[in-house]
Amino acid sequence: MASMMFTDCSSSTTSLLIHLNRRSSTTLLRQSVGQLRLRTTVSGRACSLSIRSADAASDKVIDGKAVAKTIRDEITVEVSRMKESIGVVPGLAVILVGDRKDSATYVRNKKKACESVGIQSFEVRLAEDSSEEEVMKSVSGFNDDPSVHGILVQLPLPSHMDEQNILNAVSIEKDVDGFHPLNIGRLAMRGREPLFVPCTPKGCIELLHRYNVDIKGKRAVVIGRSNIVGMPAALLLQREDATVTIIHSRTKNPEEITREADIIISAVGQPNMVRGSWIKPGAVLIDVGINPVEDPDAPRGYRLVGDICYEEASKVASAITPVPGGVGPMTIAMLLSNTLTSAKRIHNFQ
Amino acid sequence: MASMMFTDCSSSTTSLLIHLNRRSSTTLLRQSVGQLRLRTTVSGRACSLSIRSADAASDKVIDGKAVAKTIRDEITVEVSRMKESIGVVPGLAVILVGDRKDSATYVRNKKKACESVGIQSFEVRLAEDSSEEEVMKSVSGFNDDPSVHGILVQLPLPSHMDEQNILNAVSIEKDVDGFHPLNIGRLAMRGREPLFVPCTPKGCIELLHRYNVDIKGKRAVVIGRSNIVGMPAALLLQREDATVTIIHSRTKNPEEITREADIIISAVGQPNMVRGSWIKPGAVLIDVGINPVEDPDAPRGYRLVGDICYEEASKVASAITPVPGGVGPMTIAMLLSNTLTSAKRIHNFQ
Repeated sequence: MASMMFTDCSSSTTSLLIHLNRRSSTTLLRQSVGQLRLRTTVSGRACSLSIRSADAASDKVIDGKAVAKTIRDEITVEVSRMKESIGVVPGLAVILVGDRKDSATYVRNKKKACESVGIQSFEVRLAEDSSEEEVMKSVSGFNDDPSVHGILVQLPLPSHMDEQNILNAVSIEKDVDGFHPLNIGRLAMRGREPLFVPCTPKGCIELLHRYNVDIKGKRAVVIGRSNIVGMPAALLLQREDATVTIIHSRTKNPEEITREADIIISAVGQPNMVRGSWIKPGAVLIDVGINPVEDPDAPRGYRLVGDICYEEASKVASAITPVPGGVGPMTIAMLLSNTLTSAKRIHNFQ
Repeated sequence: MASMMFTDCSSSTTSLLIHLNRRSSTTLLRQSVGQLRLRTTVSGRACSLSIRSADAASDKVIDGKAVAKTIRDEITVEVSRMKESIGVVPGLAVILVGDRKDSATYVRNKKKACESVGIQSFEVRLAEDSSEEEVMKSVSGFNDDPSVHGILVQLPLPSHMDEQNILNAVSIEKDVDGFHPLNIGRLAMRGREPLFVPCTPKGCIELLHRYNVDIKGKRAVVIGRSNIVGMPAALLLQREDATVTIIHSRTKNPEEITREADIIISAVGQPNMVRGSWIKPGAVLIDVGINPVEDPDAPRGYRLVGDICYEEASKVASAITPVPGGVGPMTIAMLLSNTLTSAKRIHNFQ
């Protein structure tokens, strides 16, 4: 688990009580970056925020970084084969509007990932005060450009723009993010096939597949119902014949439901919300949450933890993704995979 | 409950053992039309196939026929107001291909329902051996016809036709069935609104609303995951903040899951599959199943029962839809509602 970047600071955590559901007395732990340094234990269930790599039972770890590497290698071979066979190089275009540092980092990483597998990358950067029309013009240009097989509009867009309008303008054949309602509709419907599956939930399922986790007939719980992760993850699990329950902020006693799950995918953005006591022995846990928590000992003053309390959960589960090094690397790998798929489809290349 | 058509023949039933899930030892009861008259009791759980109306605890009955009547009355008022205000009469077009008697009956009923509320109905009947192009031509004609605000292609289509192709050809603005993947996608996505919600699941939720059943924060179980009922019903319940689980043919021990449900919507097409022991006391039950079972004492030689064993379930539940007279009448009422909504939207009439 060379990919794990956890540092040991389990004694410098704070827990803040919140009500996930105002209508029940269920209380959950939430780590608040702004209120760290004061340690509170609720019902003896405080979760230390991090672990040393050595603490993890390594045979239980679902190593997303390693799987993503394997997938990138597979894509490299395919990209090369395509180029040699028909002279076509898959292309991914990214549109970045404004000066958000995090967005710029994401775009840079995507560009680097493209380069690493031989996919051509295109980029348009527009100023924060650009008009919606200017963004639309870029989208339209990439829609018509035969060298571009996938188009990504980096979110969030500046608030004066209509995100839905812009995303809807992306050609369905190049919607490698898979967020178009037509793709989501096809994902939901039996007998229909989406052109693209959203990258993060696709990465979650890919991890289950690569680790030979049986999905059919299993009880699966998805925590969170976002359009980009929770909802499509639930649809994917259902397509694979799991019996799926979606837990969200209005769910009462979520831990009673998670305790029945053979598979949990958590994508809720609450550090360490899912405790060891929430988990059925032997369950498989996929943690999509990447939550920064303050840590003066970390080089940047913070570190990343998941939605699932790794230290507790790894003792109960049969397999678990670390944060970072779990789902994260899979998202970009799936984006590359979608771009390759798109290029193959457009050029009818098997 | 004047609408109930149940006859008393609780002693002339047969149950047939099936495995809902081959991988578990769960056994379920299924009534088979072809093998009636031989009574079998499995684990003492045989469900009598029908009840006298008088047997039902009438204060528990969710009277779909009465609610549908109220809705039709509301639609009549709105259709009339629209006609008087802007001179527009909502129009519904139905395309019927082939000679299936059941399809012809459904189309006739829809036509009658339209007439009863003042909606104009259009109909095209095509021969069984028509070409796909002929059907497409009819769809296209209605797409372009400004008097038509809703288009229905009666299913099933003859086997030589591509159902998806034809359904996809219906203009999204006139897809009153709500089956277009774009509508389903919008239904699945938070912050998006479908143009139309499929009629039967919409009718289920409307019944819950009209009977003031609290949905938010409740555990809901949908039995069946069809594109036309189960899946969209689950999406609708989730939009209303229920915690939803979908049960299907691969689900192990479904009764353990239904026992936790505050609301059950069953759309599986298995007569009396859901037994009293499957139900949490006080649960609200919506039965979409309309299953014919042989009954020599009935005028037509058969009668209709739901997926839920009404006799047992009505003793445990706080509210339950009868079959017939429950969800059935709501489906057509919602079709009329969708047609009115479409006409209002197209003509920007509030």
